[in-house]
Amino acid sequence: MKIKEFKEYLEKEGIDFALFYNAGMETNPNFFYFSGFNGAGTAVIGKSPFLLVPKMELERAGKGNINHVYAFKKKRAFQSVYEIIKKRKLRHKKIGIDKSSLTLNEFISLKKHIKSKFADVSNYCSKLRAVKTPKEIIYLKKSCSYADKIINKCIVNFNEFKTESDAAAFLVYETKKSGLEISFSPIVASGKNAGMPHCEPSNTKLNKGFCVVDFGVKYRGYCSDITRTIYIGKPSLNEKNVYNILLRIQKGAVDLVENNKKCSELYDFVVKSLGKDAKYFTHGLGHGIGVEIHELPNLTPKSKDSIKDSMAFTIEPGIYVPTKFGIRIEDSILFSGSAKILTKTSKDLIII
Amino acid sequence: MKIKEFKEYLEKEGIDFALFYNAGMETNPNFFYFSGFNGAGTAVIGKSPFLLVPKMELERAGKGNINHVYAFKKKRAFQSVYEIIKKRKLRHKKIGIDKSSLTLNEFISLKKHIKSKFADVSNYCSKLRAVKTPKEIIYLKKSCSYADKIINKCIVNFNEFKTESDAAAFLVYETKKSGLEISFSPIVASGKNAGMPHCEPSNTKLNKGFCVVDFGVKYRGYCSDITRTIYIGKPSLNEKNVYNILLRIQKGAVDLVENNKKCSELYDFVVKSLGKDAKYFTHGLGHGIGVEIHELPNLTPKSKDSIKDSMAFTIEPGIYVPTKFGIRIEDSILFSGSAKILTKTSKDLIII
Repeated sequence: MKIKEFKEYLEKEGIDFALFYNAGMETNPNFFYFSGFNGAGTAVIGKSPFLLVPKMELERAGKGNINHVYAFKKKRAFQSVYEIIKKRKLRHKKIGIDKSSLTLNEFISLKKHIKSKFADVSNYCSKLRAVKTPKEIIYLKKSCSYADKIINKCIVNFNEFKTESDAAAFLVYETKKSGLEISFSPIVASGKNAGMPHCEPSNTKLNKGFCVVDFGVKYRGYCSDITRTIYIGKPSLNEKNVYNILLRIQKGAVDLVENNKKCSELYDFVVKSLGKDAKYFTHGLGHGIGVEIHELPNLTPKSKDSIKDSMAFTIEPGIYVPTKFGIRIEDSILFSGSAKILTKTSKDLIII
Repeated sequence: MKIKEFKEYLEKEGIDFALFYNAGMETNPNFFYFSGFNGAGTAVIGKSPFLLVPKMELERAGKGNINHVYAFKKKRAFQSVYEIIKKRKLRHKKIGIDKSSLTLNEFISLKKHIKSKFADVSNYCSKLRAVKTPKEIIYLKKSCSYADKIINKCIVNFNEFKTESDAAAFLVYETKKSGLEISFSPIVASGKNAGMPHCEPSNTKLNKGFCVVDFGVKYRGYCSDITRTIYIGKPSLNEKNVYNILLRIQKGAVDLVENNKKCSELYDFVVKSLGKDAKYFTHGLGHGIGVEIHELPNLTPKSKDSIKDSMAFTIEPGIYVPTKFGIRIEDSILFSGSAKILTKTSKDLIII
């Protein structure tokens, strides 16, 4: 994606090319963004991009964005990269690297094999990725639409589940069956477990009370993110009130989204609206979504980010009373003239 | 785990304490190994270990190995760490860091907030983790036993699956239902797809021929890994032969495992046994398993590792003929006096 803009940036900065390394066990977001390949390898992005992968990945890597794919000839990745640089007679006085993902040991190895000046391109990449291309928007919409379909099916079937794990398993099963990946390990947190925002599903019986279901899929590498809180049992009037207050605040925050809006202002609106309950809101209001489940913009109190056209992000206020209960309501949003809610599952309190 | 040995190492090296940082989206293996917590945070391992986590993770982090858990008071993690170092009057002339996971940007931030000398502890940690404690062995056995149960159930039900994704979804569903995580995204590769060792399951119809099923779970954070290759349709005599040759080689490699055996020799044995087909064996023979799915020892041609008591690792020879077919047979092994196969699913060719 956006290889053209990136090359212009490199030229402006006097960087000959940028090198992105993916050790392989996890997908490195910038590596994947440019190469379209989600395995181990090194992508060299400059005038004529190329990709090096282990021999066993040649066939798979050829299906990505980069036409020139080489197999490692040496055990040491950066040594192989250097051989191609030499062969292609590529100028390499100043090489861009991704300091947000390159580890200290990887950098030691890189410096050993390639003599150059190195410049960080990670901040630029994060900003580049925050504004989506039309193709990325199609992928994100599709990703959210799958997430909707699957979370809906989960809620409809909720009566069948005995444990949090059962519900989480259902979500993952439906994702995999659709040939997709989950964008993170789903959270199904019932009763007092819901008081922990990142609670892991357990295989003990579902507790009565609010149950937070936080889920998303990856469609062609693009992450969706949605949370719905349902109620198991019979909610009290007070519980219904708390839910509806949070829902109003979530909708209010979405309504406030406009061009150039400071993300910190959206956060502040939620804190102000929560009043004395703001102490139970213990995380950011949201985050960008794309090839990463958490990327720019940050909707946090000290964020310097503002909303721009074609940004995609979540809005997810929550209330967590430790050892008591938790509620979170989250949508994936695309800003394009106005805030378009991409996750369309109903937000009315569902009682199971 | 092994905090005592690690402290002895620090003392010997004149390191005051080691600091492990986990940005949070993926589990940092050394951070998890010492802290027992799989979320975002910073673990300081020295005379009196402590852990810092975001406020919303306090309750969950308290369930790990470390008694002293603090919430971040500042947005910047390392600034909060420094405040505790000052408060506790901890000597910090030389701090151990994990250069295999700390990124260049994280290190820049660390140096900004904490003035010290820094020494890499990553190599030591990798070696420490390669030899398992009795508790870890219990977790690994349990992990392999779950993997066996689930892959068996998958094979028994294989007739029900229409696509590779269906089978992969089944594996993940059963894992989640058991309250476990997968140790990596399962591979179900049928027909010519099996020729790509890391093929991703697709939701097109299962192809006839060999079908590689590579799967594992995490039990309490510990990874199992097993591959079985089944046959969809009616194998020719030649196909049965190829399978049985690979199976004999796999068993032969397991039989060769003994104390102090060089891992490269195990690899060489397989290459030699494969003869002219060795060119179709395009990856290492195996890898250690533990809190990471790939850790020490490396069973690769240039590995310097040797088998030691209480090491856990895979043995997984394969034959991949690109665009034609693929076969892999993999067990998780524990070395304790002799090679104990932890994954007990039958390796006879199953015909579906």
